[in-house]
Amino acid sequence: MRTLYHHSLLASARKVRLALYEKRLSFAETIMSPWDEPTDELAGLNPACELPVLMDEDGTVVCDHAAICEYLDEVYPEPNLIGRTPAARAETRRLTAWFDHKFYQEVTEPLAGQKLVNRMLGHAPDSRALKTGRDQLIPHLYYIGDLTERRGWLAGEQLSLADLAAAANISLVDYAGDIPWDQVPATKEWYVRVKSRPSFRALLKDSVPGVPPAAVYADLDF
Amino acid sequence: MRTLYHHSLLASARKVRLALYEKRLSFAETIMSPWDEPTDELAGLNPACELPVLMDEDGTVVCDHAAICEYLDEVYPEPNLIGRTPAARAETRRLTAWFDHKFYQEVTEPLAGQKLVNRMLGHAPDSRALKTGRDQLIPHLYYIGDLTERRGWLAGEQLSLADLAAAANISLVDYAGDIPWDQVPATKEWYVRVKSRPSFRALLKDSVPGVPPAAVYADLDF
Repeated sequence: MRTLYHHSLLASARKVRLALYEKRLSFAETIMSPWDEPTDELAGLNPACELPVLMDEDGTVVCDHAAICEYLDEVYPEPNLIGRTPAARAETRRLTAWFDHKFYQEVTEPLAGQKLVNRMLGHAPDSRALKTGRDQLIPHLYYIGDLTERRGWLAGEQLSLADLAAAANISLVDYAGDIPWDQVPATKEWYVRVKSRPSFRALLKDSVPGVPPAAVYADLDF
Repeated sequence: MRTLYHHSLLASARKVRLALYEKRLSFAETIMSPWDEPTDELAGLNPACELPVLMDEDGTVVCDHAAICEYLDEVYPEPNLIGRTPAARAETRRLTAWFDHKFYQEVTEPLAGQKLVNRMLGHAPDSRALKTGRDQLIPHLYYIGDLTERRGWLAGEQLSLADLAAAANISLVDYAGDIPWDQVPATKEWYVRVKSRPSFRALLKDSVPGVPPAAVYADLDF
């Protein structure tokens, strides 16, 4: 059985789950905590002791969220999530990296990290980090709205891994109740479309024990 | 003219330069500082204002070091730097990410960042960061030696992007004079092979004003 080792509060794992659902690949889930000492099982799967890890049906183990998404698009090419030409693929990968790294470090980590992960671990959130995250959130949301208004989706006319990476991060910030949707109508229009996709259903049911989502999180009419 | 916008003290840009040289692609270089306020020219090329950026011969602009390497392997496929099968490609990408992110954060940034970048910027190095970097360096070097002794190269029997990512980071730590080569003979054997390649020649001539390399840096018989 194809198995994904992950945690619901990891943006990188949410992106991989969305890619699996978009490709209609069924998989079992093993939840592990990236905030505890790595287990021998995790260390055996991934010497970097990082989540997510995918074990495919034939036993192939793929580590690193970006490597997993490239692997999925090579082995299960439809629907194509990266693009058809080298320039289109470069644009998808540029924006995917933007959300995986830049948005994650500037927004997801200071906001969702502080509010969700710290609450789960019993630590108080750092108010300076929260302020930094909120300040940096708005320009990123405008960038999403600007691109999707002109192109349809983030990297072009088709949904791509860039939309999944963005939505994976946005969904965690939304889980924490921190997106001022009324201020960013173009971004909201894009997120309504992403959130209504069948691939998003399982994510909207996520609820981490002790850290329930904000009311808006699972609402399709937000 | 194909142009790479970069800085010699950026590990991610060193990896891209090695990939360009391995593929025998000529390119002009425009040196920019990632530590100063981004110029309008950089912001125009890459909205993330990050280096390296590649402008290809036909004017295609590719941002993000990982996206650039994937683009190069798609457009200029020989020599292949990622692998021939999905599993081999996944292994190359796992290890490339290891050096781009894990090794970079645990070793390159605390050691070369403190010693080279801080010196260039006129800041004193943080002795705690230096100690952390030195402590974490040794297990990484053993991992390289362990993999390359068994496989030949990091990700398998052929040189790949994983070797270039590792060597790009190692070369900066070596520029700072921080690798105890006598303690890690298997890793040294691999690095002798990488360092002797024609693709490495230009990197060995790098010398940042005010921050000269350690004596061992350009020595092929170290």
